[in-house]
Amino acid sequence: MKVGIIGVGTVGASVANILRDNKDIITERSGCEIEPAIGVVSNLNKKRDVTIELTDDIDAVLNDDSIDIIVELMGGIEKPYEIVKKALVKGKAVVTANKALLAYHRYELQDLAGDTPFEYEAAVAGGIPIINALRDGLTANHIQSIRGIMNGTCNYMLTKMINEGVDYDTILSESQELGYAEADPTFDVGGFDAAHKLLILGSIAYDIDAKPEDILIEGIQDIAPEDIDFANEFNYTIKLLTIAKKIDKKVELRVHPAFISKDEMIAKVDGVMNGVSVIGDKVGETMYYGAGAGGDATASAVIANIVDIARRGKGSPMLGFELDNSEDLTLMSKDEIQTKYYLRFRVEDKAGVLAKIATILGEQNISIEKMIQKPLNKTCANLLLATHTSLEKDVVDALKKIEQAGAVTAKPVMIRIED
Amino acid sequence: MKVGIIGVGTVGASVANILRDNKDIITERSGCEIEPAIGVVSNLNKKRDVTIELTDDIDAVLNDDSIDIIVELMGGIEKPYEIVKKALVKGKAVVTANKALLAYHRYELQDLAGDTPFEYEAAVAGGIPIINALRDGLTANHIQSIRGIMNGTCNYMLTKMINEGVDYDTILSESQELGYAEADPTFDVGGFDAAHKLLILGSIAYDIDAKPEDILIEGIQDIAPEDIDFANEFNYTIKLLTIAKKIDKKVELRVHPAFISKDEMIAKVDGVMNGVSVIGDKVGETMYYGAGAGGDATASAVIANIVDIARRGKGSPMLGFELDNSEDLTLMSKDEIQTKYYLRFRVEDKAGVLAKIATILGEQNISIEKMIQKPLNKTCANLLLATHTSLEKDVVDALKKIEQAGAVTAKPVMIRIED
Repeated sequence: MKVGIIGVGTVGASVANILRDNKDIITERSGCEIEPAIGVVSNLNKKRDVTIELTDDIDAVLNDDSIDIIVELMGGIEKPYEIVKKALVKGKAVVTANKALLAYHRYELQDLAGDTPFEYEAAVAGGIPIINALRDGLTANHIQSIRGIMNGTCNYMLTKMINEGVDYDTILSESQELGYAEADPTFDVGGFDAAHKLLILGSIAYDIDAKPEDILIEGIQDIAPEDIDFANEFNYTIKLLTIAKKIDKKVELRVHPAFISKDEMIAKVDGVMNGVSVIGDKVGETMYYGAGAGGDATASAVIANIVDIARRGKGSPMLGFELDNSEDLTLMSKDEIQTKYYLRFRVEDKAGVLAKIATILGEQNISIEKMIQKPLNKTCANLLLATHTSLEKDVVDALKKIEQAGAVTAKPVMIRIED
Repeated sequence: MKVGIIGVGTVGASVANILRDNKDIITERSGCEIEPAIGVVSNLNKKRDVTIELTDDIDAVLNDDSIDIIVELMGGIEKPYEIVKKALVKGKAVVTANKALLAYHRYELQDLAGDTPFEYEAAVAGGIPIINALRDGLTANHIQSIRGIMNGTCNYMLTKMINEGVDYDTILSESQELGYAEADPTFDVGGFDAAHKLLILGSIAYDIDAKPEDILIEGIQDIAPEDIDFANEFNYTIKLLTIAKKIDKKVELRVHPAFISKDEMIAKVDGVMNGVSVIGDKVGETMYYGAGAGGDATASAVIANIVDIARRGKGSPMLGFELDNSEDLTLMSKDEIQTKYYLRFRVEDKAGVLAKIATILGEQNISIEKMIQKPLNKTCANLLLATHTSLEKDVVDALKKIEQAGAVTAKPVMIRIED
C-alpha cells in the first residue's frame, strides 16, 4: 500500500521515518508492505529530515491512482477539509491527526466517507490509543463519563505551579522557551485545543454533533497561588479537565480547570503527559495514560490507523502478527536475567558475619547500592540490602554460598527491583 | 447473530445479561442484533440469575448451524481446548476469557482458526482493553517492555500490607472472606494466574511460544514487614509484576514481586485494580488501568470481542456507531451544569462583608461546605470557599450579584470541583 503524506512537519516526518525504520514490524503486523511514497509540502526549499520524495503539487498526489492512503497533517480547518473530501470522493482511505478539522466537520466527513476508511486516532491524546479503546474496547458499555487531561502544555504548567510553587507568568515563559507553549499560547491555555479533542470523544461516546462554540470552555489563566493553597489544604490537585458526562438524556461537554481529589488515578497524570478516565456502566473505570504530543508518539497513532486500514476486511490477527515475526526472538533463560536485587539476610549479630556475606557477594560480581542493618533481638539482626544491576545466576549462586557458609540463620529472601 | 455461551457462572451470566440490558447500545455499535441464544451448563438444577435458555448438551449447541459465535467460559484447559477446536472446525467464531487455555494452546488454536475469528480480550486484565491496545493501537512500535499488575488478589493483599501494615496471613484470611482469594490461594498468590496472562502478552508483543513451565514465576508468600520497611525507606512500593522485556534478540518473561519506584504511574495501581505499562520504541510509555476481574468487567471485554466479530469486514464505524444512537442524547446547556464550586473572593476585612456574601449565596440556593479566610494585607482578605453541589446558573448569578453589591474588591474567581 502506498501512502501520501500531506504536510511534512514534525509529525509528517515522523510518520515517514517510522514507516521506514520500523518497516519490519509494521509489515509483519499488517500483512503487507506499507510504503511512504510521497510527501506534499508548500515550500520545497525548506530542509526536512526525511528521505521520501517531496512535491508541492497536492492535486497530482490526489489524482495518483497508485496512492491508497492519504495522511492529512497540514493543520488548519477549511483547506484540509477540501483536500480530505477530494481524497474520499476518489475512494482513497484517509488518516488525519487534525483535531480542529474534526471538531468542525466530523459528521460531514463521516457521511462522505461511507465505507471508505477514515481514521483519526492521533487527533485525541496523541499516542494513547483512546479512540481505539472507546470505539472498539468498550462497546458493551453505556459510557457514563469521560474525564480527560488532554493538553500537555496546561498540565505541565499546572504541575509546576502546584508541585513547585512557580507562578503562572513565570511558568508560561518557561514553557514557551521549552517549546511546550506557542508564542501566542491562547489555543492551549485557553482550553480550545482540549475542547476540540473533547468534541471528538463526545461523538464517539454519545453521538453528539456539537461545535466548539456550543460548549463551556475555560482556560487556566486565572489560577492563583491562593487557589493552589486551598487545593492542597483539602487534598485536591488542579487539572485542566475535559468532561463528557451523560445525565438522563442530556450530555455535558465542558473544558475548564477543576479541583480533583489527589487520590484519583487521573490526578496522578503530571507534567506534559495525558490521561483519560472513562467510566462505563459495566466495566467501571478504565484509565489510559501516555504522551499526548510529540512527533513520534503522534505518528505512532497515525501508523496504527494505517495498519488497521491495511488489515481491513481481515480483522486483527489473533496473536498480533499477520506474518511471522522475522525478528525470531527467543525466550531468555532465567539465568541470564539482569536486574537489581533486594536481599534480606537474617544474621547473628557478631563480628565477621557481614564480612563473610560481603566477600561472597563481591566474588560473585554483586555490588551493593544500599544497606540497612536492623537488630531483631539480642543475638540476631536483619541485614537488608539493594544491589546494583547483577546477573540472576550470580545472585542465586551467591545466596546458595552464603547459606552454605553458615553466615545466615534463615533462608535468604530475594526480591527483584525494577527501576 | 446468535451467541452460545458455554459455562454460565459469574462471567457467563454477566455476558447474557449485558447483551440483554445494553442491547440498545450494542446493536447501534455493531450494526446488527446480537442474541444470547443459549447457555450450556453442567448442572441444570442449579439456580442461575439469567433469563436465557439453558441446556447441558454441548454438542447440540456446537452442531446448531444457527449459532454464529461460541463464548467459552467454562474454565479448565483440555476440555475447553477440545470444545474450541470443534467450534472452529465448524467455522464458528470463538470468544474466550480462558487464560489457562491460551497459556498452553494459543499457537495451535491460532493455526486452526485461520480466518475464523478467535478472540480473547477478557483473558488478560479483565475489563481493560489491553489486547486491543497492543494488537491494534501500538502496531507502529517495537515493544521494548510490558510491565503488568494483572492479579487483583495479590495487588489487594500487597496494598493492604504496605499501606496498613497488615501481615501476610491476616490479609490472606481477609481476602478469602471477601471472596478475593480462593480457599487454595496458590494459583493467585503463587503468580501462576499472572503468568498465564503474561504468556499471552508475550505472544502478541514478541511472538514467543512459551509455556508456564518455561518462565520464572515467583509468588508473594515470602514478603515480610521488614521488606516493606526497606521499600518505604527508599521510596519503593512492592507489586507482583509481570515483565516482558526485549533485550537484543532475547525476550525475558517473568512474574515475581518487585520493588518499583513510588513515582512511577504503575506504582499507583492499588487494591484489586489492574494496570499494564507498555513501552514502545516510538510512542514511549502508555499505561492502561481498570478492573481486572469481576463478572461485568470481564463480560465487557467478552462483548467487545463479539461486537468486533459482528463488524468484521466493515471495520469500526468512524464515529463509533454503525446505526444512529437511538438514545437521541442532546447537549446540556451550560446553565444546567451541576457540580461543586470553589470560589475566591477578595474582600475588605470589615464587619458585614461575609454576611453580605453568605446571604446572596443562600438566596441562590448555594450552600457552603468548606471555608478559609486569609488576610492579604491590613485592609483586605481572601475568602476561599467550596460549595456543595449547585447549579451553574445559580453560581454565575450569585457571583454577578456579589460583584454588584460591592461586597468584593476584585472580580470573583470560580473553579469547578469534580469529585
